[in-house]
Amino acid sequence: MKLMTGKEYVESLRNYRPDIQVKGKKVESVADEPLFQPGINAIAVTYELAHQKQHQDIMLATLEDGTKVNRNNALDFNKEDLIKKLEMTRLICKWTGCGQRYLMHDALGALAEVTSLIDQSKDTEYFQLFKAYLQHVQQHDLTCGIAVTDAKGDRSKRPHAQENPDAYVRIVEKNERGIIVSGAKVNITGAPYVHELIVLPTRAMQRADADYAVSFACRVDEPGLKMIAKPAGRPDDAEAPFSSNFGQSTAMVIFDNVFIPWSRVFLCGEWEFAGDLAEAFANHHRHSCIGARAGLGDMIIGASALMAEYNGLPHTEVSHIQRSMSELIRITEGFYATGVTASVYGKQTAGGNFVPDAVHSNIGKLMLAEQVYDIFRIAHEISGAIVVTAPTPEDLAVPESGELIRHYLGGKHGTTADERITMARFLEDLTASKEGGFYSVISLHGGGSPEAMRMSAVRNYDFETQKAHIQHKLKCFAKLEGTCKECVTCVNDEVCVD
Amino acid sequence: MKLMTGKEYVESLRNYRPDIQVKGKKVESVADEPLFQPGINAIAVTYELAHQKQHQDIMLATLEDGTKVNRNNALDFNKEDLIKKLEMTRLICKWTGCGQRYLMHDALGALAEVTSLIDQSKDTEYFQLFKAYLQHVQQHDLTCGIAVTDAKGDRSKRPHAQENPDAYVRIVEKNERGIIVSGAKVNITGAPYVHELIVLPTRAMQRADADYAVSFACRVDEPGLKMIAKPAGRPDDAEAPFSSNFGQSTAMVIFDNVFIPWSRVFLCGEWEFAGDLAEAFANHHRHSCIGARAGLGDMIIGASALMAEYNGLPHTEVSHIQRSMSELIRITEGFYATGVTASVYGKQTAGGNFVPDAVHSNIGKLMLAEQVYDIFRIAHEISGAIVVTAPTPEDLAVPESGELIRHYLGGKHGTTADERITMARFLEDLTASKEGGFYSVISLHGGGSPEAMRMSAVRNYDFETQKAHIQHKLKCFAKLEGTCKECVTCVNDEVCVD
Amino acid sequence: MKLMTGKEYVESLRNYRPDIQVKGKKVESVADEPLFQPGINAIAVTYELAHQKQHQDIMLATLEDGTKVNRNNALDFNKEDLIKKLEMTRLICKWTGCGQRYLMHDALGALAEVTSLIDQSKDTEYFQLFKAYLQHVQQHDLTCGIAVTDAKGDRSKRPHAQENPDAYVRIVEKNERGIIVSGAKVNITGAPYVHELIVLPTRAMQRADADYAVSFACRVDEPGLKMIAKPAGRPDDAEAPFSSNFGQSTAMVIFDNVFIPWSRVFLCGEWEFAGDLAEAFANHHRHSCIGARAGLGDMIIGASALMAEYNGLPHTEVSHIQRSMSELIRITEGFYATGVTASVYGKQTAGGNFVPDAVHSNIGKLMLAEQVYDIFRIAHEISGAIVVTAPTPEDLAVPESGELIRHYLGGKHGTTADERITMARFLEDLTASKEGGFYSVISLHGGGSPEAMRMSAVRNYDFETQKAHIQHKLKCFAKLEGTCKECVTCVNDEVCVD
Amino acid sequence: MKLMTGKEYVESLRNYRPDIQVKGKKVESVADEPLFQPGINAIAVTYELAHQKQHQDIMLATLEDGTKVNRNNALDFNKEDLIKKLEMTRLICKWTGCGQRYLMHDALGALAEVTSLIDQSKDTEYFQLFKAYLQHVQQHDLTCGIAVTDAKGDRSKRPHAQENPDAYVRIVEKNERGIIVSGAKVNITGAPYVHELIVLPTRAMQRADADYAVSFACRVDEPGLKMIAKPAGRPDDAEAPFSSNFGQSTAMVIFDNVFIPWSRVFLCGEWEFAGDLAEAFANHHRHSCIGARAGLGDMIIGASALMAEYNGLPHTEVSHIQRSMSELIRITEGFYATGVTASVYGKQTAGGNFVPDAVHSNIGKLMLAEQVYDIFRIAHEISGAIVVTAPTPEDLAVPESGELIRHYLGGKHGTTADERITMARFLEDLTASKEGGFYSVISLHGGGSPEAMRMSAVRNYDFETQKAHIQHKLKCFAKLEGTCKECVTCVNDEVCVD
Repeated sequence: MKLMTGKEYVESLRNYRPDIQVKGKKVESVADEPLFQPGINAIAVTYELAHQKQHQDIMLATLEDGTKVNRNNALDFNKEDLIKKLEMTRLICKWTGCGQRYLMHDALGALAEVTSLIDQSKDTEYFQLFKAYLQHVQQHDLTCGIAVTDAKGDRSKRPHAQENPDAYVRIVEKNERGIIVSGAKVNITGAPYVHELIVLPTRAMQRADADYAVSFACRVDEPGLKMIAKPAGRPDDAEAPFSSNFGQSTAMVIFDNVFIPWSRVFLCGEWEFAGDLAEAFANHHRHSCIGARAGLGDMIIGASALMAEYNGLPHTEVSHIQRSMSELIRITEGFYATGVTASVYGKQTAGGNFVPDAVHSNIGKLMLAEQVYDIFRIAHEISGAIVVTAPTPEDLAVPESGELIRHYLGGKHGTTADERITMARFLEDLTASKEGGFYSVISLHGGGSPEAMRMSAVRNYDFETQKAHIQHKLKCFAKLEGTCKECVTCVNDEVCVD
Repeated sequence: MKLMTGKEYVESLRNYRPDIQVKGKKVESVADEPLFQPGINAIAVTYELAHQKQHQDIMLATLEDGTKVNRNNALDFNKEDLIKKLEMTRLICKWTGCGQRYLMHDALGALAEVTSLIDQSKDTEYFQLFKAYLQHVQQHDLTCGIAVTDAKGDRSKRPHAQENPDAYVRIVEKNERGIIVSGAKVNITGAPYVHELIVLPTRAMQRADADYAVSFACRVDEPGLKMIAKPAGRPDDAEAPFSSNFGQSTAMVIFDNVFIPWSRVFLCGEWEFAGDLAEAFANHHRHSCIGARAGLGDMIIGASALMAEYNGLPHTEVSHIQRSMSELIRITEGFYATGVTASVYGKQTAGGNFVPDAVHSNIGKLMLAEQVYDIFRIAHEISGAIVVTAPTPEDLAVPESGELIRHYLGGKHGTTADERITMARFLEDLTASKEGGFYSVISLHGGGSPEAMRMSAVRNYDFETQKAHIQHKLKCFAKLEGTCKECVTCVNDEVCVD
Repeated sequence: MKLMTGKEYVESLRNYRPDIQVKGKKVESVADEPLFQPGINAIAVTYELAHQKQHQDIMLATLEDGTKVNRNNALDFNKEDLIKKLEMTRLICKWTGCGQRYLMHDALGALAEVTSLIDQSKDTEYFQLFKAYLQHVQQHDLTCGIAVTDAKGDRSKRPHAQENPDAYVRIVEKNERGIIVSGAKVNITGAPYVHELIVLPTRAMQRADADYAVSFACRVDEPGLKMIAKPAGRPDDAEAPFSSNFGQSTAMVIFDNVFIPWSRVFLCGEWEFAGDLAEAFANHHRHSCIGARAGLGDMIIGASALMAEYNGLPHTEVSHIQRSMSELIRITEGFYATGVTASVYGKQTAGGNFVPDAVHSNIGKLMLAEQVYDIFRIAHEISGAIVVTAPTPEDLAVPESGELIRHYLGGKHGTTADERITMARFLEDLTASKEGGFYSVISLHGGGSPEAMRMSAVRNYDFETQKAHIQHKLKCFAKLEGTCKECVTCVNDEVCVD
Repeated sequence: MKLMTGKEYVESLRNYRPDIQVKGKKVESVADEPLFQPGINAIAVTYELAHQKQHQDIMLATLEDGTKVNRNNALDFNKEDLIKKLEMTRLICKWTGCGQRYLMHDALGALAEVTSLIDQSKDTEYFQLFKAYLQHVQQHDLTCGIAVTDAKGDRSKRPHAQENPDAYVRIVEKNERGIIVSGAKVNITGAPYVHELIVLPTRAMQRADADYAVSFACRVDEPGLKMIAKPAGRPDDAEAPFSSNFGQSTAMVIFDNVFIPWSRVFLCGEWEFAGDLAEAFANHHRHSCIGARAGLGDMIIGASALMAEYNGLPHTEVSHIQRSMSELIRITEGFYATGVTASVYGKQTAGGNFVPDAVHSNIGKLMLAEQVYDIFRIAHEISGAIVVTAPTPEDLAVPESGELIRHYLGGKHGTTADERITMARFLEDLTASKEGGFYSVISLHGGGSPEAMRMSAVRNYDFETQKAHIQHKLKCFAKLEGTCKECVTCVNDEVCVD
C-alpha cells in the first residue's frame, strides 16, 4: 500500500486509455492534455498534501491494521474523523478551489452504509463486495470519479415513465458474470482524469423503476464507456491567474452496453434502496462541500483584505470595509460551523462507519449554496470595479501602454499597479469570470438543488419531540392555572419531565 | 456541598433582605412577590433539572475532587464541557425562555481567565481570591446576578469624560479593609431574585478611567445597594400562557457607597485589563446565548408545527409551509452550529479553564441577534393572523360568546377552537407581545450590540494567515508561468508550503 | 353632503345600537367605551385631517358634480387619484399607526369594478345598486368596516366541503325582499366603531360553493348581527404613550340569520365572480397598505433618529448608525415606491374607475409584510436595550427612585432621562409590545398572506412577452451567426421588432 | 437635425481617428474592429430603436421648437420625461444588456443643473456654453462617452494630497484660448466607439484641489488623448450567444496635455461645485441604471421561464419554481419602482430641467446593486446546473458526439437538446461568464459604490420633518394625559398640525 506523489498520480493516468473528447477533439493522452491540466493539478494536490508532514494528521486516515491511507479513500468511524475530513476538504479547496477527490470519500461512506443495510433485509452480499472494492482503491491509492446525476429528460417524470428510456442509466441485461448497463450520467466532476468511476442512483425509485436502481464501479477505460468532457478551469488564459492552474472538468459519461462483473455491482434492482443510497451519498457530500466552500471563502477573504489595503482602504481603518469583512467572516465561518456540528452530532451506521447529522449537513449546504453569491458581492464591494476593468495583460506587455498603466494604476504608497492588477485579476477569476460563474452554480446545485436540501432538512428534523414538548408544557401550565410555585414542583415531577 | 431543589432555592431567598422596588412599590419578600414569580420559576428550573437523572450529564459538572456541582456554577476545562454547557443553556431555555443563571457561569469563566492574566503581570493575587469565591458559590449552590452594563450617559464619551461622574460604577475610596463603590449598573438580568451580584467592567478603559476599572462580588442585600426592578414576564396576565409562568426581571442596581472587602475584589484600577475582562465575559456569554436562543427556536418550531396542523395546513402537505419550516430549522440550527464550533475550536487560558473560539461565538451571537426577528416572522407566516386576533379569555368565559367562538374557530377535523386559541396565544406570548418584544431586543443587545459582535469577530479573525496564503499562491503561480506540472512540484516544495 | 368633524363622527356613533361584547362585557355605548377609544380616535383623525387646509388636496376627492368627499369614501379615476390615495394612507397612518377607514375605499373600488363586470355577463343590475350605495356613504360621510375573512375551519378544504357549514358566511335563504345570511367573519378591523359593514367573499369559489358567493352591506346594528371584539390598542396603559391614544380593534362578526334587502346585495350566488371580487379588493387594499406602513416607517425613522441623538450617537457622526438609517430609508421608501408605481401603471376598469397595477401592489405588500420585522430590528439596533428595559412610570413617580433614575439615565449633554425614557417607551410601544406584535402580524397577514401575494404577483405578471422577446432574440442571433453588423439591420427589420 | 440609423452611426465613426489600443494592438478603424463590435452594436440599437414607430414615444424627445431628438441627447423637463427616460433605458438594455448611450443623457442633465448654479454665484457663463454644446450634440445626433472616475491612487487621500499628481485629471495650464489638461480617467464605458467625451469631476473637492475641479467636452481624437481599451463583451466566442452580439468596452482614457477651448469648458477651478456636479450626474445616472438593470432582469426572467419549461418544471406547476419566479419579479419590479417614484417626486432645477428625487434614485441603485447577485442565484436555481455544464459547441458539431448529446439532453416532450443547450448558454452568458461577472460588478460599482449610495440616500433624506413629527406627537400626547377625546381636538388644533 503506497501513497502516490502528485507526479506519480499524473504518471499513473498513462495506464488508462479512456475514450474522451474535449471541445470536439479526441484526447490522446489525458496526462498531457492541456485542457485538463488545471483539473489534474487539483487532484495532484490531494496526493501531495498527504506527503506534507504538517498536514498528515488531517490528510491521512489510519486503518484498523495501522496502515495509513489518503483520507479521501477512507471511511469515517467517529466524530473526530468527520471533523478531520471537513478540515481536509477546506485545506484542499483553499489550495485548489475544488479538489474533486473527496467525492470519492462521500461515495465510499454511502456504499458502506447502504450495502450493509440492503444485506440485512435481502439475500445479498453487497457489503463484502464493497469492502473488497474499498481495499482495492486504498491499496492503489486510486481516485474515483462519482457518477450520480442522470440526464433526466423531463424532470416531472420518473425514470421508467420517460419518453427516452435512456434518460437514466439502466440495467439492460443480467447474466452469470455480471450486468450490462446503458445510459448517460451528466456533469460528472473530474471524470476524465480519474482512475475509476463509481456509479450511484440519483434519486428514490419505485418498483417500476427497478431497472434503473443500479450502482457499480468500473475503470474509466471500460469498453463502451465514452466521455464528452469540458475543459478544466480556464487553461492557458492569461487573464486567469488561478484557474489556469487549478480547475475542474465536468463530463457527460455515456455507457453504451458496458459490462460490469458482479464483483463491482453494489445495487442491482433493489429499488427500495435507491433513495437511501442517493440520500446517503448526498448527506456525506453536502458535508464535504461545506468544508470545500469554506476553503474558497478563505481565499476570497485573504484576497479582499489585500485588495482593500492596496486601495488605501484597509478594514482596520475604514468602517464600511470592516462591516463587509465581518459579513464575509460571518458567512464563511457560519456555514462551516454546520459542518463541524454535523460531525459532532453524527451517528454510526449498520455498516460501522460514521455519518454526519443530516439536518446540519443539509442546512449547511443550503447556506453555502445561497451565500456564495453574497460572498462574491461583498468581495466586489470591498475591492472595487477594478476587478473587471483592469487592463489586459497584452496592454501591460506593450512598453508604452505598460508604462502609462503603471503610472496611473498604483494604489496606496508602496503598492504597484502590477500588484493591484494581479490581485484584481485573481478576484475576477474566482468571482467574476467563467470560473466564478462555475463556482456559483456548482455551489448551488452540486450535491443537489437547494430545494432538495430544504426537503431533506425538514424530513430529517425531529418535529415530534418539539411538538410533544409544547403540548406537555401547555398541559402543565393549564393544570397549574398559572400558580407559579407549583410549576417548580411540576418540573420536579417525573410525569412532567420532557 | 449540596444541590438545592427548586423549592429550596425559593426558600433560600428568604435569607436575604435586599432593598428592591418594583413598579413603584417596595418589595417585602422577594420569594413571595407575584411580579417576580415568573423569574423565580425560571431560576428554580435550573435547580430542578439538576435533579433529573436524564439531564444530569449536561446539568452537572464534576470538580477535581469528584464533587458534582451545577454546571452554571462551574468552569469549563475542555471542548466537551463547552458543548455540554451549550446544551444546558438550550435545555433550560427551551423550558423557561431564559434561564438567566448561565450568566453566572459566563462571569466565572471570564474571571478565571483574566484574574490569572493580571496576576502574571501585576503584583496581585486576584486568582486566589477568585478561586475562593468560586468555592463559595459552588459550596452553597448559589445563583449570582451579573452586573456589567453601566448607565453610560453620553455614549460618545469615555467614563472619565462624562458630565455625570456616576455614569459608570467607580471606586470612590480604597482602604485597608476594602473598597467603597458608587454608581449604577442597568438592565441587570434577574438581579432581584439572586443571592449575590458579580460586577464586571462594561468596556475597555484608558489610564484616565482607572477608577472605573473595578470588578467585585457582593450579596444583594449589602448596605447601600438598591434595586429598581421591572416585573418578570407578564405575571397574572390571562393572555400570557407562557410568560405568566416564566420570565425575567431586569433591574437598575444602584451602589451608593457600598463597601466591598478585599476578599471579594477582582479588579481595582488595573485599567489595562478592564477590556480583557469585558471581552472575556462577552465571549462566554455570547456562546451561552447561542444555546439559549436555540431553545427559544425549539419552542417556536414545535408550536408552529402544531398550529399549522390545527389550521389544516401541515408542513408535510403544504409546500410553502414546508419552505417556512426549512427556514426556521436553518436559522435555529444554523446559529446553534456556531456555538458547537466555538466549543470544538475553543482554547485553554492561563487560568487553566477553556474558552470558546471568539470568532464563532461572535458571529453566532450576531446571527441569532438578527435572525430572531426572522424566526418571529416565519412563525407568524406559518400560523396566521389568529396569533394576534384570537378572542380574549374573558369572551371565552362568557357562556354565550364562548359557545359562538367554539362554533366558529375550530380548525381541521378534531381540532377544537380552544386548542387553536391556546396555541395562538402561546405564540403571541413568545413572539408578538411585550414578552416577544423583550426577547427580540434582548437577543439583539444582550451580551453586546450587533456592532460590538461585528467588531469582535473581525478583531479575532486571523487575517494574516489568509493574506499570506494568497500572496504565496500568487508568487508561486507567477514563478511557474502557468506551467501546470510544476505546480505539483511547488506544492511538494517545503518552501512553498502554507 | 357634509364632511363631519372628528367630534361629529364620535357623536354619530350614538345613532347605532350594535350588539358588541369586549373582554367579556357588553358594550353600552360605543362612543364612550374606553377600550375602543384609541380606535375611535384613529378614525376621527381621518375626519379631522379632511378639514385641515394643508391636507385637503390629498384628503378630499372631487365628484363629477364638483362636490368634495372624503377620499376614503371615493373611487379613483386616474393615476393621480391613486397616488393621492397612497399619500393619504401614509399621512393618516403616520398620525395614527393605522387609520382603518381606507379599507372602505378599497372595497368601494373593488365593488365598482366587479359589479360592472358581473352585469356585463349576467342578467343583473349590481352596478346600479352599488352606485346608489356609494352615494349613500358619500352623502352621510360614513365609515364602513370591511368584512372579508371567514372563519375558514379546515384551511385545506373549500367552503362547501367544510365539516362546519358555517365556516364561511353563506346565504341561507333568498326571498322577494332580499336574502338571509349566516356565518362569521373574523379579524374585522375597526368593526365596533364604524357605521356600516360591507361583506365580501374571501376567496375564489366553485359551483358547489355558490351559497358562499355573497357580498352585501348593512348597518352594524342589524338584527342578528353580533360582534365579539378586542380592545383597540393598549387603552389606559401608562407604558403605552402611542397606543393608549391610537389603536385598532378587531372583531369577530357573527351573522345569525341577518336579513339583507336586495338593494344592498352586490353578489348572490354568482360564484364565478367571487374570486374576482376578492382579488380586486386585495389589489386595492394591498396598495393602500403600502402607504399605511410607510407612515409607520416614517414614525419609526423619526423616533430612532431622535433616540440616537439622545444616546450621543447621531447618525451624522457614527458610521454604523448611518448604515442602519440607510437601511430604514431603503426599506420604507423601497416598498412605498411600489405603491407609486402601481399607481402610475394602473388601469381603468369596465366600471370606469382606476385600479393599481397588480404586480406592483402585490410585491409591495409582500415587501412590507416581510420587512416590517427588519424595520423593528434596525430601530432596536439604533436605539439600544433601553427600549425594553426603561424603568416603569410607577418608579419614576416615586420621588426617591424618580430622582435616582433621573440622575443615572440622562443621555448626551442636554438630554434628560425623561426624554430618553419617553422615546424608549414610544419605540417599545410601536415595535416591542403587544401593539408592536400586532403591527407585525397585521402587516404580514393583512390583505392576504405572503403566499397569496407571491401567487398573485406571478399570476398577474406578463411572462409571455418576456419569453417571446428571448425566443425572438435567440432566433435573430442564430440567423446572423454572430455577424455583428447585420444585427443592426435586424433591429431595423420590422419582423424583428419586439 | 437628423436622426441617424444604426448603420449611419457606424459609418460616422469613420470620421474620427482616435488613438486606441485594445489587447495590446493599435486599432486602425474603430468601425471595423471586431473586438468592439458588440459595443458598437449596442449603441447602434439606440439609434435604430428611435426609428421604430412603436418605440418613438419613449425614444424621442421633443424640443421647444418641435424638433425631435434622441432622448439620450435631451434634457428632462417634467416627471413624464423622467419616466420615459427610465422606460427607454429599460427597453434599450432589454435589447442590448447595456445601451451605454444614456450616460450621455445623465451628464447633460447634470451640466444643465450645475452650470446654471455656478453662474448664479460666480461671474461665469457656463450655462450658455453648455446650451451651445447641447445644441451641437443634438444637431449631429452624437453619442458622447462620459469620463468621471479618476485613477484615484491611494483612496484614503484627496486629489491634491496624492503622491502621484496625475492620480486625478487636472488643469495644467490656462491661457486665453482655453485650458490644457492631463491625467487619466478609468473604466470609461463605451469610450472607443463614441464621438466625443464629456469629462466630469468624480468627487467633492476642497480649495487645495482647485486644479482638479474641471469639466469639459472634446472629440475622441483630440491630440494627446489616448485610450487603452478592453474588448466589448465576448466577441467571437462561440459559447456567448448574447455577448458576442452585444457588450460594452471600458477604457482608460489618458489626457496628455490635451488642449480644450473655453467654449467646451464647463467647470474650471470652481472647486465648491465639483461635488455638486459629481452628485448631480450620479443622481441622474443612478436613476438611469435602475431602468437599465430592469431590462437585464426582464431578459433573465424570460429565459428562466423558458428553461424551466424545457426542463419539464414550469412555474405554473412546480411550487418552488413559482416561489423563485415571484422573487425574480419582486426584485426586478421592486427596484424599478424606485425609478418611477424618483420621477414622480422629481423636481425642477435652476437650469429649468427636471431631476429625479435623490433618495429614491439612490436606494434604487443600491437595491439593484446588491440584488443583481440574487437575480443570478435565483435564475440558476430555476435553471439547473446545465447552465455551466452544457457541452461545448465543438462537441455538438462533431457528428457522433452531437448525436449522443442530442439523444441524452432533450428535456420535456417536444424540447430538443439544442433548445435546452442554447438557453443554458444564453443564461450562462448573462449570469455565469466573464460577461455575467462584468454585469454584477458594474451593477454594484457603476454610478458609485454601494457605500456612496447609502451616504447619498441618508444625506438627501428629510430627517428634520420626521423628527419634528414625533416630537410634536409626544408633546401632544403628554398634554392630553391620555384622554382620548381631546386628541381629536388636538388634531383639529392649528397649533398641533404637522
